[in-house]
Amino acid sequence: MADALPKSPLAPAAFPDLPVIKGVRFAAAAAGVKYQDRTDVMLAMLDPGSTVAGVFTRSKTRSANVLDCEAKIGADSDVGAAIFVNSGNSNAFTGRAGGESVAAICTAVAQSTGLPEARVFTASTGVIGERLPHDRIIAKVDALCEGLRADALEDAAEAIRTTDTFAKGSATTVELNGQPVQIAGIAKGSGMIAPDMATMLVYIFTDAKIARAELQALVSRLNDQSFNCITVDGDTSTSDTLLMGATGASGIDVAGNAEFETALRTVFLDLAHQVVRDGEGATKFVEIQITGAFSDAEAKTHGLAIANSPLVKTAIAGEDPNWGRVVMAIGKSGAAAERDLLSISFGDVLVAEKGWVSPKYREDLGAAEMKKQNITLKVDLGIGSGTATVWTCDLTHQYISINADYRS
Amino acid sequence: MADALPKSPLAPAAFPDLPVIKGVRFAAAAAGVKYQDRTDVMLAMLDPGSTVAGVFTRSKTRSANVLDCEAKIGADSDVGAAIFVNSGNSNAFTGRAGGESVAAICTAVAQSTGLPEARVFTASTGVIGERLPHDRIIAKVDALCEGLRADALEDAAEAIRTTDTFAKGSATTVELNGQPVQIAGIAKGSGMIAPDMATMLVYIFTDAKIARAELQALVSRLNDQSFNCITVDGDTSTSDTLLMGATGASGIDVAGNAEFETALRTVFLDLAHQVVRDGEGATKFVEIQITGAFSDAEAKTHGLAIANSPLVKTAIAGEDPNWGRVVMAIGKSGAAAERDLLSISFGDVLVAEKGWVSPKYREDLGAAEMKKQNITLKVDLGIGSGTATVWTCDLTHQYISINADYRS
Repeated sequence: MADALPKSPLAPAAFPDLPVIKGVRFAAAAAGVKYQDRTDVMLAMLDPGSTVAGVFTRSKTRSANVLDCEAKIGADSDVGAAIFVNSGNSNAFTGRAGGESVAAICTAVAQSTGLPEARVFTASTGVIGERLPHDRIIAKVDALCEGLRADALEDAAEAIRTTDTFAKGSATTVELNGQPVQIAGIAKGSGMIAPDMATMLVYIFTDAKIARAELQALVSRLNDQSFNCITVDGDTSTSDTLLMGATGASGIDVAGNAEFETALRTVFLDLAHQVVRDGEGATKFVEIQITGAFSDAEAKTHGLAIANSPLVKTAIAGEDPNWGRVVMAIGKSGAAAERDLLSISFGDVLVAEKGWVSPKYREDLGAAEMKKQNITLKVDLGIGSGTATVWTCDLTHQYISINADYRS
Repeated sequence: MADALPKSPLAPAAFPDLPVIKGVRFAAAAAGVKYQDRTDVMLAMLDPGSTVAGVFTRSKTRSANVLDCEAKIGADSDVGAAIFVNSGNSNAFTGRAGGESVAAICTAVAQSTGLPEARVFTASTGVIGERLPHDRIIAKVDALCEGLRADALEDAAEAIRTTDTFAKGSATTVELNGQPVQIAGIAKGSGMIAPDMATMLVYIFTDAKIARAELQALVSRLNDQSFNCITVDGDTSTSDTLLMGATGASGIDVAGNAEFETALRTVFLDLAHQVVRDGEGATKFVEIQITGAFSDAEAKTHGLAIANSPLVKTAIAGEDPNWGRVVMAIGKSGAAAERDLLSISFGDVLVAEKGWVSPKYREDLGAAEMKKQNITLKVDLGIGSGTATVWTCDLTHQYISINADYRS
């Protein structure tokens, strides 16, 4: 399946050069979980002194791996940590067997790395409802430990792909106290969804030094501004996981450092945007900017209502400047709106204001905006100071083909 | 557009024979609002003594017609009422001009019928954001009044169509105190949505006698069990309107009468199901039965989450018994669920239970269920006694074609 899909037209030109992050090493291997002739397991090994924080899907039917990570993530520890991921099988909705597979993998990784099981974080992504062949996975653990390399983060990005049409990576460097601090991350996912519910997984690493509780607050805050602001079709995986590890190897403490947060935000946003750019069937990348809402929360409600509306998404696919559908989505969102105070722009073209089409609007200007590959929709509610930005893609025939025509 | 679409494969074999409802007459005419060579305005005239009740879209950007109806619907009156509808233009998001058009039409209908303006209820359905050409509409009012006929409800059903691929009607008779009471209704809409946001409009008539407040309670209750339980794609029109008129001409008072309510429910449900059966691109009619939820409200939340999930809807289009996507939709709905207490059946085939695929399940049995045109999904949450049933259709290439490929 993954190989059958052409690369998204919205993909970046190339995978970025990722810097070495001191204090963390990576390895990937081919365990034959489902796919043949490709890597499908990866290990990330964080040195002693690292802190780890994370956020997880809120699904009520979340996977055994997510439940296990949630139980472990809040503990302070100095001994280091391992992140172990397989693709090809999500280990979700596999009853009691799911928990048994997680425990077996954690035991094997702990034995091979010398870490306690409480410091082994796992994720599985791929088909749902099929028992995870964890023996095949465990058979690769020793080799992964032996193959750990500081410069293998791209290998890890390849190994966690399922139906992704391109591997996703992002990195930045921020100079603090005259010294460089490195940040690099990888992600997989074609939006919230994919055939067999492929999951969104994100792993971000830095050599900055930061206490666990402060890292957790930072991760939660940036996640709300990035991965929680993207949608492909509103569906939510049972396995979504974001983990961040800070090794402290640079010696630079970044607690409360605004420059570091700004730099880290660029990596969160870049990876979140890449997930949207690999949205199933996507041909347009859409940024929706909401201003003038009652509150920031209500602005996000409006933004996601527009971003998830099949009528808006099909209009964008058809390059139709159909502002009426935007009005409809605002009306149904549940958040406060006043018809006659709304204004709507496509790019810099003011389309509607004062409850009607703008007298200056010309259809050819709106149509020209919709022909772009990157589209910006701006909505001002005119009733408050709440703002939000969300990102989505269009809804095309290819989405239907991927999800209906091919059998899983 | 309307004529270009083939009739839905889920359409009933024929438009039903609708009985004459004593005390109400109908007329339709061609005003050329947008369409040529077809009727596009209709008038229903209710005799003195009739009561009228209604429910409307909750959209925050609802049309001028809806705002006007809402202001009028709660008043008691003995002088009769008129319902006036045009298709081809929704008069929605037309700024102040929208209200002026409604007022102009109400004035014209009031003058021609002798009713006060407060007893004239209007609706408009069709393109959004274009000024309603109300002069053309008003020019037909006298002819409509002169052409009123007791047996012209089917003509009215034809006149209110926009992108509907078939006209929708339903009727039943209930015998009370040895005397027949008639109920007949019409509807238009291809789900909540259609190109240019075509609206759902429903008009139901009876010769039963019932006070306005009791009729309103009945209409609100039955609407919650029917039109509020259907979805095509989760989008909501700015103009959805359901009006019911009770003429009292049979002399039979039906206040608190359970038999009447049961009969009326069949008409509400039949019309609601016909709207789903005309869902854009629909090839499957899907009933989703939820049991064992924490409450009836939570059961409906689960049902609508499944019914609105693009992944579930595309799986149904692909005839794929993909129960994992049903699990995903339950997990994301926000209502209570316990993974290991869930059970899921396709038709009478038990697919998943105890957090995993059922040991008795065979893929060929699930696949056979999915090949049917009418599909039943059953989900038992196993945690309470809440129940709900919702109805939807599948999501197909034709939906994308209708909403993206054709320009409005």
